[in-house]
Amino acid sequence: MTCEPIGIIHSPFTAPEGMPIQPAGAAGVRGTAEILPPYLPGLKDLDGFSHLILLYHFHRARPLQLQPTPFLDTEPRGIFATRAPTRPNPIGLSVVRLLRVDGGILQLEGVDILDGTPLLDIKPYVPAFDAPTEVRTGWLEEAAAQVKSQRSDDRFR
Amino acid sequence: MTCEPIGIIHSPFTAPEGMPIQPAGAAGVRGTAEILPPYLPGLKDLDGFSHLILLYHFHRARPLQLQPTPFLDTEPRGIFATRAPTRPNPIGLSVVRLLRVDGGILQLEGVDILDGTPLLDIKPYVPAFDAPTEVRTGWLEEAAAQVKSQRSDDRFR
Repeated sequence: MTCEPIGIIHSPFTAPEGMPIQPAGAAGVRGTAEILPPYLPGLKDLDGFSHLILLYHFHRARPLQLQPTPFLDTEPRGIFATRAPTRPNPIGLSVVRLLRVDGGILQLEGVDILDGTPLLDIKPYVPAFDAPTEVRTGWLEEAAAQVKSQRSDDRFR
Repeated sequence: MTCEPIGIIHSPFTAPEGMPIQPAGAAGVRGTAEILPPYLPGLKDLDGFSHLILLYHFHRARPLQLQPTPFLDTEPRGIFATRAPTRPNPIGLSVVRLLRVDGGILQLEGVDILDGTPLLDIKPYVPAFDAPTEVRTGWLEEAAAQVKSQRSDDRFR
């Protein structure tokens, strides 16, 4: 299948190094998503939602690594047990806060995404669909607590 | 960008009609994801996680509809304010429970996905990354409560 951008994400992050590695580490970081004109009718009703799931193209990621060493760890992990960008299909996912819809511009907060990233899809975040309970998070159990302070380096360039 | 399947999802649902419309409505429904051999090293460490985010190709969806009438509603909504399959990039997202990893077969529960669906990515579900608080869900505020009983019909064939 072929994916086409529906828009472009703008953020303060112009290089992959030094970025927050998840929205939780990008608290307060503002950004925008500029939606391409053909898709504007699809934004109807979006302003009722406080949070969006963004799917985007990790367009600056290095080639596939099936066992990268993630930012939050010191040993190689299976790519599907990580959120690292060097995936077979380099699709990124972030849950961000929607502040406002200004015509074709979405004003966002909690943006952990590189400036200029091609946006592929927007889905409404719905706890009844997306937030299971009694969750175990494997190797990330301890590491996830560091996500607010940890920043990226150049390992996935 | 071009996406290639990393595996195939198997479920009891062989037609788009009569399916649960979200994992919350597929409680107890078992399914599997069969991962293609080149990607098996990427499954390392996955068994520590109780829940996975699956991204997959809505391969049976009809062409683009920017304002479909969703299963949970009676009026047209912007596609990006819905989870309907007739999206510009027909990528589906479901959070499912991982019961067990049997070699290249993931045993799953809460599978609201059509049998034979091409799997594009697996990400670990991590509440610290993926579960914001103070969420508003717009038109779905009341409708989401129906998700456990509502089933699909043929509107997106």
